[in-house]
This record gives sequence, C-alpha cells and structure tokens, in this order.
Amino acid sequence: MLITDIINRKKTGEPLSREEIDFFVKGYVDGTVPDYQASALLMAIWFRGMDSRETADLTLSMANSGDLIDLSAIPGVKVDKHSTGGVSDGTTLITAPLVAACGGKVAKMSGRGLGHTGGTLDKLESIPGFSVQLGMEEFIANVSDIGLSVMGQSNSLVPADKKLYALRDVTGTVDNISLIASSIMSKKIASGSDAIVLDIKTGSGAFMKRISDSIKLAEAMVEIGKLAGRKTVGIVTDMNQPLGSSVGNALEVREAVEVLQGKYECDLKVIAFTLAARMLILSGICTSESEAMEKVEDALVSGKALVKLAQMISAQGGDPAVVENLSLLPQAEAKISVKADKTGFINEIDTADIGLSAMLLGAGRAAKDDVIDPAVGIWLTKRLGDYVKKGDELAVFHVNNPERFEEAKKLFKAAYKITSEQPEELPLIYTIIEE
Amino acid sequence: MLITDIINRKKTGEPLSREEIDFFVKGYVDGTVPDYQASALLMAIWFRGMDSRETADLTLSMANSGDLIDLSAIPGVKVDKHSTGGVSDGTTLITAPLVAACGGKVAKMSGRGLGHTGGTLDKLESIPGFSVQLGMEEFIANVSDIGLSVMGQSNSLVPADKKLYALRDVTGTVDNISLIASSIMSKKIASGSDAIVLDIKTGSGAFMKRISDSIKLAEAMVEIGKLAGRKTVGIVTDMNQPLGSSVGNALEVREAVEVLQGKYECDLKVIAFTLAARMLILSGICTSESEAMEKVEDALVSGKALVKLAQMISAQGGDPAVVENLSLLPQAEAKISVKADKTGFINEIDTADIGLSAMLLGAGRAAKDDVIDPAVGIWLTKRLGDYVKKGDELAVFHVNNPERFEEAKKLFKAAYKITSEQPEELPLIYTIIEE
Repeated sequence: MLITDIINRKKTGEPLSREEIDFFVKGYVDGTVPDYQASALLMAIWFRGMDSRETADLTLSMANSGDLIDLSAIPGVKVDKHSTGGVSDGTTLITAPLVAACGGKVAKMSGRGLGHTGGTLDKLESIPGFSVQLGMEEFIANVSDIGLSVMGQSNSLVPADKKLYALRDVTGTVDNISLIASSIMSKKIASGSDAIVLDIKTGSGAFMKRISDSIKLAEAMVEIGKLAGRKTVGIVTDMNQPLGSSVGNALEVREAVEVLQGKYECDLKVIAFTLAARMLILSGICTSESEAMEKVEDALVSGKALVKLAQMISAQGGDPAVVENLSLLPQAEAKISVKADKTGFINEIDTADIGLSAMLLGAGRAAKDDVIDPAVGIWLTKRLGDYVKKGDELAVFHVNNPERFEEAKKLFKAAYKITSEQPEELPLIYTIIEE
Repeated sequence: MLITDIINRKKTGEPLSREEIDFFVKGYVDGTVPDYQASALLMAIWFRGMDSRETADLTLSMANSGDLIDLSAIPGVKVDKHSTGGVSDGTTLITAPLVAACGGKVAKMSGRGLGHTGGTLDKLESIPGFSVQLGMEEFIANVSDIGLSVMGQSNSLVPADKKLYALRDVTGTVDNISLIASSIMSKKIASGSDAIVLDIKTGSGAFMKRISDSIKLAEAMVEIGKLAGRKTVGIVTDMNQPLGSSVGNALEVREAVEVLQGKYECDLKVIAFTLAARMLILSGICTSESEAMEKVEDALVSGKALVKLAQMISAQGGDPAVVENLSLLPQAEAKISVKADKTGFINEIDTADIGLSAMLLGAGRAAKDDVIDPAVGIWLTKRLGDYVKKGDELAVFHVNNPERFEEAKKLFKAAYKITSEQPEELPLIYTIIEE
C-alpha cells in the first residue's frame, strides 16, 4: 500500500477502505507517513469529505492508536458525557452527580480549557485539594463505589488524535465534520464507556456557529457511536450566550453547587437535567424521558446529587465542605461592576469574546502551558433579550490582576450588541439526534 | 502575513494576491514555510485552481527564486523551444539547427529524461565528446557566434520549482494545470529568452492524455508568457504514438541527422518544421507561416541546418563528423527484430509503455541517478493504422544488456492493440494557441 495512492484516491473522490485508513493512521503515528503527506490527505478529505463508514473507520483506527481503557471491572452500564465546548458550560459538575445519585456510573476522562472555552479539569481543580491525576485503579474503584469520577486523559490515550490535531491546526484542516467527529469520538471510544451523551453547542460561543453544521456534526458522531457499538445520543444546544451566569473556574463550581442546592432555575439547569435524563435512559435505568426527568428532579430535591458531588470531591482529595460553604472556594481580591454604555435590549452577544475576556482576567489559557487563576472570572447579571438602561450592571468582574482588566472590560463590552429591537427568542435545545 | 491564512483563503476559494503567493514561494524556499503547510496549500490549489493572474504571479515568484539568466549580450531576439515531453521526440535536434541556419538565436537550457520520456541533454551526450556542461560565457558566446547552444540547467535556476516539484510528486499534486504551467514557464522565463515556442504533447505518451487538458495547459502557458512579457506560442501536437521511429539516445540523434540530411519525410520532420517556422516568426525573421516554412525548407535542402548542427557539436566538444558518418555514434551489440503476434491494423499504441520498454533496455532512467546506455533503444518500423501480418516486424531492439530484453519485449508487445478495424486517423497538430 502506498500513501500517494491513498492521497490520489481521496483526491479524486473515491472512498478509502478500512485498510487504507488504518495504514494512514498507523503510518502517521509511527512516522512512516510524513507530515507533508498527511496534510495533503487531510486537505483532500476537507474537500471530498468522508462517508459515515470511512468516518467510523478513521475513528476506530485513531482510538486503537493508543491505550483502550477497560472499564469492565465496574458493574453496569458506564455512561460518558461530552460537550463540544462553550462558555459557562459547567454541566458536568451538575450532570455527573445527578446521574450517580440515580444509580448511573459516570467514568469521565476530561480535558482542559483552551482559548474561550473552559475545561472541566480546571474547574474541579479550583476546589481546594482536588486532584484529577488518578491512577486507573483508583478511578475504577471510585466509579464502582460512588458512581462517578472525573480524571485527566492520559497521554497515551489516542496519540493519533494529538498528532493529527496539531497538524490540522496549522494546515487549515480543522473545520471538517468528519475530522472533528472522529477526533472527539476516538477519545470517547478509547475511554471505554458503553454509552455516550453528546452536547453539541451551536452559536457565537461554539466552534460551530451555524445550526446546520452542528446538526451535521451531531449526526456524524451518533453514526460513529452506532457503528462502533456504543449507545450514543447527540443533543444540539444553544451557545449564543454563556449557558450559565459564571465564567471562570471557582465561579462555575459555585454556580453548579447552587444549582445542586436547588437555589435557582436557569438554562444551565435545564441542559444539565436534559443531559442527565438521557444518560439515565442510555444506562437502562429509565425508559422514558418523563420518568428520567422525575428521577433527576428527585435526586436534586432530596439533596442526593449534592452528596454525590461531595463524595467525589472527597474521593479525589478535595474538601467536601465546599458544597455547604462556598466561601471555601478561592475568592478574587476585587469585585468590579461592569456597566452598560447604552440603553436598549441585549440583542446579540459575541459569546466567544465573553470567554476570551475571562481568559484575559486569568481564568483561561491563550496557550497550552499558561497558568490559570482559579478565583478570577466574570459573573453575568443579564441575559439575551434583557432590557438595560445605560449604567445598569451587565456583570461583576472578579479580578486579581488589575493589569489586563481594562482590556478584558473593553472586549467584554464590545461583545454586547444593545439595540432598540428585542431579539427573537432562541431555542435552548434545537434537536436531539438518536441512533 | 500568515501561511495558515493563505491556506484558508485558497481553501475557501478566494484568489491569492501577488504578495501572498510571493510570501509562500519565498517562505517555502527559505524553509520558514514547512513542507506540511506547503502540501496543504498545493492540495487546496489542486481543488480550487488558480486564475491566470495568480498563475502568472506564481510563475514569476518561482522564476525569481534563483538565478535569472541575462542573455542581453546576444544580439537580436533570443528564442526558446520547449516540449512537455513525449516518446521519440527529438525535435530540438532538428529545430534548433534549422532556426539557427535561418538567422535565429536559440539559447536553450534543457533537462534530462525521466520515466518514459527522453531528455535532450541525454540525446546530445550520446555524441562522442559532446558536453552540456558549459559556462555561461561560453554558452552566450556560442549562441552569438553560431546561433545555437544547448546546455544543462544550472542548479541555481528556479530552486522553488525543484523543491515544489519534489513535494508535489509525493503528495498527489502534480496533475494541476496551473502548477504544471508555472513549473515549466518559471524555468523558461528564468532562462532569459525573449520568445518561447511550446510543444504541448497530448495522448497516450504524454503527461496530458486528453486533448482538452492539453489545450488548457497550452492556454495557461501562453497566458503566463503574455503576462510576463514574453512572446509565446503553444502548439498542441499528437503523442498517441512515438513521434519519430527511434526511441533511445544515439538512435534519436541518428534519426535527427537523417531528417536534416533530407533523407525522409515523417511526422517528426513536420513537427520540427512547424516549431522552427513559429520560432522564426516570433524572432521577427519571418512575418508569415508560408514564408517561414519556405525559409526552413531552404535551410534543410541547402544543407545549412546540418552545418549548424555540426558547428554546435564542434563548439561543445563533440565530433562534428557524426553528421556525415552516423557509424561514429555508439552502436548496440545486438539488433533483435520484434514481431507482431497478431494480424490486423495497429489500432492503438500505449506510447508511454514504448518509452518504458526502451527505458528497460537502458535508454532511460527509472530514478534520477540511473545511468543511461546511449547506444540502446528501439527502432520502430510500423506506425498507427499500418496493417501487419502475424510475424511481421514491429521494431528492431538495439540491445547491450540481454537481461531485461524479455521484460522490455513483453511490455512493448502489450503496448500494441492490433484489431480488425482500421483506426480513425488522428491529426498531427491539433491547434495552435497564440497570444
């Protein structure tokens, strides 16, 4: 088999065989296929696309390029949850305890935040003492015992994706549905769960800005799951504004705890509940959405979900008292109110810029090795469609390092389009893609 | 300027500016643009194409990447000739002396053969003593004094093309009109001639198999010439059979000399004359094709063209007696007649396989560093449309190394499709593209 033949076949629009895709992935990981041939093939894939069989084969070849996590020691159906990334998207912190409280098994390997998006690991690490560096045995024991654990992905998980993603990033080949879907799903499949609920974000704070693209991505991922023998559901949800009110690590933990404490109704809660319900259905614990929703509601009201969160924090070295006493979370030195410059309706929010604004305060990373300040961030006090008067508060900035405050504030304010027209209300959940 | 932006712009179908193209070419040559980004861009160009302005800009950026030959010391219009490569295509050996005999100035930098195609340098080197390694002063003096010289391209001519071609060869990005056209024309422009006559081959022995592609390539190259201020004409000619009767280096010199001796009429002569006439018109020596054809005919009949060949051979260290005594050329040890297996009309010839068959005998190179045997090759005794009986001679193989004879013979015979139907006669010249 010759990589040049594979490039030429894809270039002229022929589908690649499983063997050809495997030859490419293995060769790229072991270095026999050089970067320049891989990038030519990726660009040909960008133009020609891959059908669902090719995409599934690519995903499995990538998953097989490294460790395959064996979760069989955990009894029952293991269920995973993944978000394609957004702003103020702390659903895992709410969903995983809810599912565990209902008897589900959530064994989640997670990543870190980059750019405008936050990462679950960073959020959890803002809890004093909490560690995401677990051994595999400990991880499996935690899920078996308390029903949930979140740990960092090991470096030997899907090395093909690491190498391919780095190449795609510098060769204009990131924005392709098959390549995005295989990148995400290869990690989910290698992580070993039996069932996967995907939260595909769409809008100004998502990687996919257009709903049609988000649906295509959801369909591609669900199809991969099906072909790979994993029960998979894709939920396409709105990211035209930050999902919750908090942007920043300790702030997002605080908001998640407040939701689990039953303190308030919000979009974040709706999405967390929807995800949890679907996870219970895929786990075989519930058979209908209404039954699952009831069970989830009960887990919240009874306080069982909050207990699950406390148990996970405790099992991973953190201080479980946090769930009762939020002042134990790191606090920023200054809280500065940021106000509207204009009177009118909040018509549009450039959500990615809200994320970048928090990043400038120190809540996120511009580059992989940047250090995060867990305490800083933004607490939003207004949502899309709200009417504000000039001088009304839009948000409270939690600041430790005033140096970049002005820059962050400027970016933040420019992200709001305030007009005399009330915007059309957007759905929170656009569609649910099932097998 | 960022190369990733340039890749993304081309990927989404936007034309690249001159500055962007220049940034890419310079960066690729100096190494700041790595192979993997260059190959992604080349693949995007393969899919999106380049308009004529972009193609001309690419050509000029490439030409400017190395030495630009200054031929201004040679009085008058300098005219070059280029063939896109075929089998038994020894036109330069006939055309250049004809043009020089009519007062034209032919300063030709040429390449070597690879695969099924022969190279002018290899053919000339089969003449005992002939050298293609000239200094620039000597080259210019020869053209000034006798009207013609053929030398090897220096390594510092268009380094961008060398590097890009090597990359295209292994990334499936060779077969694109703009990239082919810019590769050829960058070398022609850097070589310094004022006028260029292009012989674009089409058919089974050409890189372009389809006439429509060959016409597009001819149009693209003529357009580049126009935009670069060089008088350019493209002649699209047939390569569905070897142009002459000889395939192999000394054999092709012999055939060229025989044509210049006025010994026979053949397609090779028609093409050589057509090219020469166009070169005279572009040089301003003749104003019409009929006038030019008459002048060329006179150069042949008078023996002046043969004298020009002898003068060039002598000026480049070769034995000029060759033009009177062909037995001075290297001769193969064995001459073996190869016969038809079947009775019928020669309906089709896989011309590339004829070239590869001669290559197997030692007349060509499979890889760049292979050594050529100047004496060996094939002398064809039949042409397309001829009626042959089983056992009739198709060709005489000139063999020094019998080891690969059987393999070469097998490939050769399989190249002939002999059927009961007479094939349609193909034009020898399909079209002529002028500015």
